[in-house]
Amino acid sequence: MEKPKMEAAVMDRPLSIRVEQVDIPEPQWDEALIRVHCIGICGSDVHYYEHGRIGRYVVEKPIVLGHELAGTVVSVGGGVTNVQVGDRVAVEPGVTCGRCEYCKSGRYNLCPDVVFMATPPVDGAWAEFVAVRSDFLYKLPDEMSFEEGALLEPLSVGFHAMRRANIKPEHTVLVTGLGPIGLLAMEAAKLFGVNELYGSDVVAFRRELAEEMGATGVVDPSQGPMEAQLSHLQGFMGFDVLIETSGNARAISDSIRLVKRGGTIVFIGLPAAETIPLDVAHLVDSELDIYGVFRYANTYSAAIQALSKGKQDIRRVITHKFPLHAIKDAIETARTHKDTSIKIMIYPDKHNV
Amino acid sequence: MEKPKMEAAVMDRPLSIRVEQVDIPEPQWDEALIRVHCIGICGSDVHYYEHGRIGRYVVEKPIVLGHELAGTVVSVGGGVTNVQVGDRVAVEPGVTCGRCEYCKSGRYNLCPDVVFMATPPVDGAWAEFVAVRSDFLYKLPDEMSFEEGALLEPLSVGFHAMRRANIKPEHTVLVTGLGPIGLLAMEAAKLFGVNELYGSDVVAFRRELAEEMGATGVVDPSQGPMEAQLSHLQGFMGFDVLIETSGNARAISDSIRLVKRGGTIVFIGLPAAETIPLDVAHLVDSELDIYGVFRYANTYSAAIQALSKGKQDIRRVITHKFPLHAIKDAIETARTHKDTSIKIMIYPDKHNV
Amino acid sequence: MEKPKMEAAVMDRPLSIRVEQVDIPEPQWDEALIRVHCIGICGSDVHYYEHGRIGRYVVEKPIVLGHELAGTVVSVGGGVTNVQVGDRVAVEPGVTCGRCEYCKSGRYNLCPDVVFMATPPVDGAWAEFVAVRSDFLYKLPDEMSFEEGALLEPLSVGFHAMRRANIKPEHTVLVTGLGPIGLLAMEAAKLFGVNELYGSDVVAFRRELAEEMGATGVVDPSQGPMEAQLSHLQGFMGFDVLIETSGNARAISDSIRLVKRGGTIVFIGLPAAETIPLDVAHLVDSELDIYGVFRYANTYSAAIQALSKGKQDIRRVITHKFPLHAIKDAIETARTHKDTSIKIMIYPDKHNV
Amino acid sequence: MEKPKMEAAVMDRPLSIRVEQVDIPEPQWDEALIRVHCIGICGSDVHYYEHGRIGRYVVEKPIVLGHELAGTVVSVGGGVTNVQVGDRVAVEPGVTCGRCEYCKSGRYNLCPDVVFMATPPVDGAWAEFVAVRSDFLYKLPDEMSFEEGALLEPLSVGFHAMRRANIKPEHTVLVTGLGPIGLLAMEAAKLFGVNELYGSDVVAFRRELAEEMGATGVVDPSQGPMEAQLSHLQGFMGFDVLIETSGNARAISDSIRLVKRGGTIVFIGLPAAETIPLDVAHLVDSELDIYGVFRYANTYSAAIQALSKGKQDIRRVITHKFPLHAIKDAIETARTHKDTSIKIMIYPDKHNV
Repeated sequence: MEKPKMEAAVMDRPLSIRVEQVDIPEPQWDEALIRVHCIGICGSDVHYYEHGRIGRYVVEKPIVLGHELAGTVVSVGGGVTNVQVGDRVAVEPGVTCGRCEYCKSGRYNLCPDVVFMATPPVDGAWAEFVAVRSDFLYKLPDEMSFEEGALLEPLSVGFHAMRRANIKPEHTVLVTGLGPIGLLAMEAAKLFGVNELYGSDVVAFRRELAEEMGATGVVDPSQGPMEAQLSHLQGFMGFDVLIETSGNARAISDSIRLVKRGGTIVFIGLPAAETIPLDVAHLVDSELDIYGVFRYANTYSAAIQALSKGKQDIRRVITHKFPLHAIKDAIETARTHKDTSIKIMIYPDKHNV
Repeated sequence: MEKPKMEAAVMDRPLSIRVEQVDIPEPQWDEALIRVHCIGICGSDVHYYEHGRIGRYVVEKPIVLGHELAGTVVSVGGGVTNVQVGDRVAVEPGVTCGRCEYCKSGRYNLCPDVVFMATPPVDGAWAEFVAVRSDFLYKLPDEMSFEEGALLEPLSVGFHAMRRANIKPEHTVLVTGLGPIGLLAMEAAKLFGVNELYGSDVVAFRRELAEEMGATGVVDPSQGPMEAQLSHLQGFMGFDVLIETSGNARAISDSIRLVKRGGTIVFIGLPAAETIPLDVAHLVDSELDIYGVFRYANTYSAAIQALSKGKQDIRRVITHKFPLHAIKDAIETARTHKDTSIKIMIYPDKHNV
Repeated sequence: MEKPKMEAAVMDRPLSIRVEQVDIPEPQWDEALIRVHCIGICGSDVHYYEHGRIGRYVVEKPIVLGHELAGTVVSVGGGVTNVQVGDRVAVEPGVTCGRCEYCKSGRYNLCPDVVFMATPPVDGAWAEFVAVRSDFLYKLPDEMSFEEGALLEPLSVGFHAMRRANIKPEHTVLVTGLGPIGLLAMEAAKLFGVNELYGSDVVAFRRELAEEMGATGVVDPSQGPMEAQLSHLQGFMGFDVLIETSGNARAISDSIRLVKRGGTIVFIGLPAAETIPLDVAHLVDSELDIYGVFRYANTYSAAIQALSKGKQDIRRVITHKFPLHAIKDAIETARTHKDTSIKIMIYPDKHNV
Repeated sequence: MEKPKMEAAVMDRPLSIRVEQVDIPEPQWDEALIRVHCIGICGSDVHYYEHGRIGRYVVEKPIVLGHELAGTVVSVGGGVTNVQVGDRVAVEPGVTCGRCEYCKSGRYNLCPDVVFMATPPVDGAWAEFVAVRSDFLYKLPDEMSFEEGALLEPLSVGFHAMRRANIKPEHTVLVTGLGPIGLLAMEAAKLFGVNELYGSDVVAFRRELAEEMGATGVVDPSQGPMEAQLSHLQGFMGFDVLIETSGNARAISDSIRLVKRGGTIVFIGLPAAETIPLDVAHLVDSELDIYGVFRYANTYSAAIQALSKGKQDIRRVITHKFPLHAIKDAIETARTHKDTSIKIMIYPDKHNV
């Protein structure tokens, strides 16, 4: 008997993507089948689409991309107890082993055996349905939209960064790079009570959006030394915490000088260069803390709780919306309009656009 | 030559207080003289007024009470650099030694040599002027009122409690006891991003105020077991963090059962009884954390920063205002109207009421 | 075809235990079969033997007790990669779900779905063989004996307590209660570099053993107030950290007064009484930290590493050794000679006694 | 009336130093006068002697160098209560303000107003006597020698590094650079219970000393890639913690690759180069922690307690001893025999060499 089919966007080689009919996945005993309501395009999706690889991960056979999603539970395996059919859920896209030293000690983002959506050869969820292990599903409260649910994924990176930085409401914070990760890191800082929150980006559209979203001030690094510009803005003495999301070499190098003595830097953005020159003497003399951030762990429930009661509207990062069958337009928009698009949302569920 | 005089409220024995002319203090080289704009009445002030002592601290000679204040710098000693004449400032009322192991390790609230206002025999500041070591003065931003400056003192207790509890925005929190410390602990929790924040008190007026100030829900412990009431309210599974401010024996005992496994309790309220029965087996089995809180340290700058941008209005705890010459009425109101007064503010500066 | 048999000590009702022939367990794909070399008797084993229950856990059908063990891998399931046949291993006796919020955040000891050996109705390992999920097996280095491997279980409780207390080498520490948990908590403190380490117990044999094992000093609480005795011993100013392992009501009550301002108390011992009177006012005024400890998490690898290089010999807590067929004598010794036995070790492998 | 005189080693310009008669300092009310028993030569002393400056600190008038000392209290000011005449003490050489945000929050090593011995224009203590604020004096227990007291200063750097790294006894540690700071960082690691402790240095003498002092293994970075060498030594998987003390550019760059995923690096050594190329992508991908270390805070009492009971003998780093009048020989030995000298100790008290 033929299996039931669904539509999915399949990428087979660089710059080639199209919607195809594929089998609807069958949920295992500990999985639920999710009808995907909406799913974002991540920078990594665009990179795979454009180059066919990221580092050691190579697209060697057709793959479904996409890993920032929310949807509705349509069926569950026999062992599923935490969600039921009809629940609106956000999906955490990495399934971890639960048994290694990293998983057992609470840092499951470092699990060497993680199975992460849209990381070759694992399929993602630019599709009508996806099956997910139920402990990575998180019920959305009534007041939270599917879009917010899907945005929990990029928000989680910033949320994890705030934990790594041990952020406190009294901290002054600079976020360098105001793409989706940077803007959502600003939202994450606000969730932790931060009031004084600056942003920097060379793209005017992004700086403007940051201001609309509540930045205390923004700076264009192409307009001269950051210290001088910030000094003009706030009598700059150095930030308590700097969150670097751009991956830009100069932004990384400059970060050391932009935090105060005893301050903290979090590196999220992956630079292209093999090495970046850092003023280590200053790092030592000022006794800085530097933390790398790789994905996130234990953020979904926490971010849902922190966002609840309609506290902040993180959806302002969504600049474009496309139905699944327009996936080619959507990803081309992401690829070619980097200065005017932030987060592009795909809607696989035909009833919903 | 006679020294210049000012008015101060002097208490000499229980229930006896009156405004007298006393010398205006002369600031030392590292002190500033502050014209007191407003100053709150604390439960400890009322207790000294009523009983003439708190534990080992006894009013043996006439004393000026009051330690929750903000005002304006009117002169500075030669060594003062952080404030200048005309600055609006909040005053931290305990001056610590800076040299003991507690001071050096960042827990100066435990300094055995602290000189704390309105703790016999040290005078407080229910007076027109007070001299304060300048490193315990904190400039108020333009958007922050003197009242908020004075409230930083009781707010600091809650702010310190949040740090001790390592509070996070995802935590669900219950504050037991909704007097000034409890209500301001709720405000402190909100500064750290907390969204789900319950309160309990037997006094209806306090519960109502808590709701007006944004509590998710409130409970009257006299109306039956808290667990049952909370279950009705929220499908209660135990709070992440409980902040006990009442000092009530039952509230303290009950706290152990009201937090979830792995949860945290902070005890702020001082019980009258020598011992309180606690379910230690449950504490062990649930692997709880319990933290005592004694005053605060390093909170003033932080709380000013966290409160800035008009984020929250903590002034709703002020229920009464009196000029200094009405100090007797003010403290009698505090003493006899515990169910309808929260924070009573005194205005020593005649130009300001 | 009949399954291969082994000897196991089966308890069917209070005070009734005998060695029987039972099926050798077959390891699942992610399990290994362990030939048990030695396995300790825990206080909980004795309690089940004596009373047939501990709280809500009731022995309702015949059960094999014992959960402190080390042995040799004799076969492995298909999915096992971390150990191989012939490896000498310590066995962590609780298998956790890996999927709940506690497991995912590194506190798997609080997992509500843990399957813990010798907790009814789950069988333990007073038997020749036991099958264990391989991620709870830890290879023993050549220089570490099976006995030390078995003692990792009770040592883990103290090791976890040291982490909870954030112990540092400069801390002065008092351990109250010098049974196996207390003595091994002392060993754990030494692993973290602690030099000044006192113990208290009413039993002379235990105090003497503590001294032999390197206690700086010991105290008999039955000989008058601890403060006075300790003052005589060391010019007592209050301990940095107190580890309570006795469960004794007075020891728990007294603990509050025995730590210094800003000090830390860890409660491990489970008191029999429903509540214990605690001086909460002192706890608040001294700003103490109190931590409950329930079992342990992530301790086995760490304790093996900390113990390696023959640093300390924890085997001095072993006071008696019995072959499996003498299990009745062994557990009766534990039950009736509490003052002269500490840890009793059972040897199920006939070739090894 | 002429003031009493003492001998002190005065440096007036690069490479020029001689013993002169100078006034014995008079202790202020909160100071004690210390007869210096022994005092080490630090790399910074040698650098001032050789170059007349370190960064912005310039020797512009004659200066007494030296800041690693222990001695005997010979007189005290009226306000001194923690030490008395005859006490043997270690001297912490930086006197901090006690009032800035860093001092108040427990990070007094970052105090901008610190007065630090032997940092121009502040005199150090290569002299018979020195006056020190009493809260920076620490009584030595009977079993601790003056030499150990003097070594507390360089040991403190490593001790502080261990706290910054949140070192645990289970960690595997690599110390790069085996001069006095590196070797004493190894001792500090041992004080925290570390068992597996590797060292690297290009100088054979230093590697040998590290092995004598208990290193698990040592590596010569000039003999090829560290990873390969370490792999040969221990089946290298990456260290939990790496402590970089050499300031060598390659050591700093390589550090990123030598720690495991989720691992920690502490930078102590000050590189000469303005920037060092670091693999930031790897830092991000592996989610590393990096901490700068600048001096230390709150280490003296702690290190004395941790070292007490004769636990470890840190004096093996002392390779040479000189009387004060041979200061020129001493510092020339330090300057010209970097490969065969580690710590050189000066004895200003004539009765003691």
